[in-house]
Amino acid sequence: MSKIATFADLERLVKSAALKRVVLAMAQEADALKAACYAAAQKIVEPVLVGDPQAIQRIAAEEGLEIGAFRLVEAGGESECAATAVQLIRGGEGDVLMKGRVSTAALMRAVLAGDSGLKASPVLSHVCIAEIGSYPKLLFMSDAGLNIAPDLPTKVAIVRNAVAMAQRFGVSRPKVAVITAVEKVNPEAMPATADAAILAKMADRGQIEGCLVDGPFALDNALSAKSCETKGIRSEVGGDADILLMPDIEAANIFYKTLAYLTDAKIAGLITGASVPIVLPSRADSDSIKYLSILAAVLIA
Amino acid sequence: MSKIATFADLERLVKSAALKRVVLAMAQEADALKAACYAAAQKIVEPVLVGDPQAIQRIAAEEGLEIGAFRLVEAGGESECAATAVQLIRGGEGDVLMKGRVSTAALMRAVLAGDSGLKASPVLSHVCIAEIGSYPKLLFMSDAGLNIAPDLPTKVAIVRNAVAMAQRFGVSRPKVAVITAVEKVNPEAMPATADAAILAKMADRGQIEGCLVDGPFALDNALSAKSCETKGIRSEVGGDADILLMPDIEAANIFYKTLAYLTDAKIAGLITGASVPIVLPSRADSDSIKYLSILAAVLIA
Repeated sequence: MSKIATFADLERLVKSAALKRVVLAMAQEADALKAACYAAAQKIVEPVLVGDPQAIQRIAAEEGLEIGAFRLVEAGGESECAATAVQLIRGGEGDVLMKGRVSTAALMRAVLAGDSGLKASPVLSHVCIAEIGSYPKLLFMSDAGLNIAPDLPTKVAIVRNAVAMAQRFGVSRPKVAVITAVEKVNPEAMPATADAAILAKMADRGQIEGCLVDGPFALDNALSAKSCETKGIRSEVGGDADILLMPDIEAANIFYKTLAYLTDAKIAGLITGASVPIVLPSRADSDSIKYLSILAAVLIA
Repeated sequence: MSKIATFADLERLVKSAALKRVVLAMAQEADALKAACYAAAQKIVEPVLVGDPQAIQRIAAEEGLEIGAFRLVEAGGESECAATAVQLIRGGEGDVLMKGRVSTAALMRAVLAGDSGLKASPVLSHVCIAEIGSYPKLLFMSDAGLNIAPDLPTKVAIVRNAVAMAQRFGVSRPKVAVITAVEKVNPEAMPATADAAILAKMADRGQIEGCLVDGPFALDNALSAKSCETKGIRSEVGGDADILLMPDIEAANIFYKTLAYLTDAKIAGLITGASVPIVLPSRADSDSIKYLSILAAVLIA
């Protein structure tokens, strides 16, 4: 598989593949419905709308959306909508799960339900994919949305999820940079630097497969070869990272929001680790983020 | 005093004021010496070079720097250079302290020394000043460089230091946004959100003066009025922050490095809380960051 270097590459590839079915949980939500309809108009997805048919029809009419061709599955409150959406996917009737009006908590409860959910790996995690003008390839970053203060085993799982995603984008052996505030190991004052060292060695020893892992890095060391040279850091990952593992949700979320609000970067975000990709748009996300997130979900579905 | 909205404003103002003396501790370091000489050529500073005269002369010759007009104060190892630089400032012979070849640890030891140092407030902190194309004013951010995992009293001190700096830039009542990953208070899972709530109320009650403080905010709520509207947040600070207080050094450093390496933002960085501003350039900092940091130091000296 050839490498996907930009979102334009991704869009071309996805448009040339078979339509995927996106199951929208509690579809009576204007922004999510618009995003799903737009992706359908782009011939990228076939929406499956779960929720209150009348409410969905009314919103579609208000927003001028044509939903007559889409499957509509009736379900009541948010727990029922979430469970119904998950059941459709378990039954092979959907390829991507997407959040509509249902709350994140209710949707995740249905996804994580022991015997009726969609959990496939030990940890679900959020991966952000960014196309940044000044960086020569797509950059994957985790976890800005789900794991608050991941311990070491959770970090291992987050890396594995991100690696699996990067591989679906054609990066056969992604370079994972474990980010902290500094590039030196300082376990007492900065525990994240010790985790970084441990993760790097675990990958060296084959305990994390399919990728190169190095750290601790300050962000500049991960993205700039010149910065590594200045600091005397020799690393195959330094200056050429595919994946950034952030120390916690604050750092990750601030990085994500900085890209989204203070740069021209194009961004997508997805939940991985379930049996299908999950699109969990935030109300504050731009239309572009919502569309690119659906594109990314369709690729890995 | 009129408000300084850009680094161009800052440069104009500083150039029209009296020269300030920058004491360079262990001046035999090419990058720092170049930055000091450049600022001198711009008629912004008068360098005072502390260190090994022969080594300084040699580096100046190698780099083609004209240092004949500058005061040269001989000092030996890094502790002596640091102590000498601090003594010069205590004696009224310098207005800004700047790090040369001396290590950060040695310089900070001299600055923090109980009866011979420069400590003026309970906590020294790093403040980053950023001019970001898509944001209409200078943005102050703390602490990307000194305080690793600040507790609540340290956060109060960091806010006070940043407020004092913003006021020197003409922001009479700065708006301080306390940043976390989310805008809801969630003390158990995310202690930084509880600190944010406490800081906001402390400012309401006059325990932090001269500013408005609100939080918790995700970064977008602090910088985008639209994002506040979408999330239903009503706040005088939201969407219009002058100062961002980051939860810890990882989040702050990643924000700083994202601006420096992935955007066109202009950036300066300073240590505040001592009796004079301290410029602590990192080797990986660009020439622009070093120059703008000196400019900012000269303003508040």
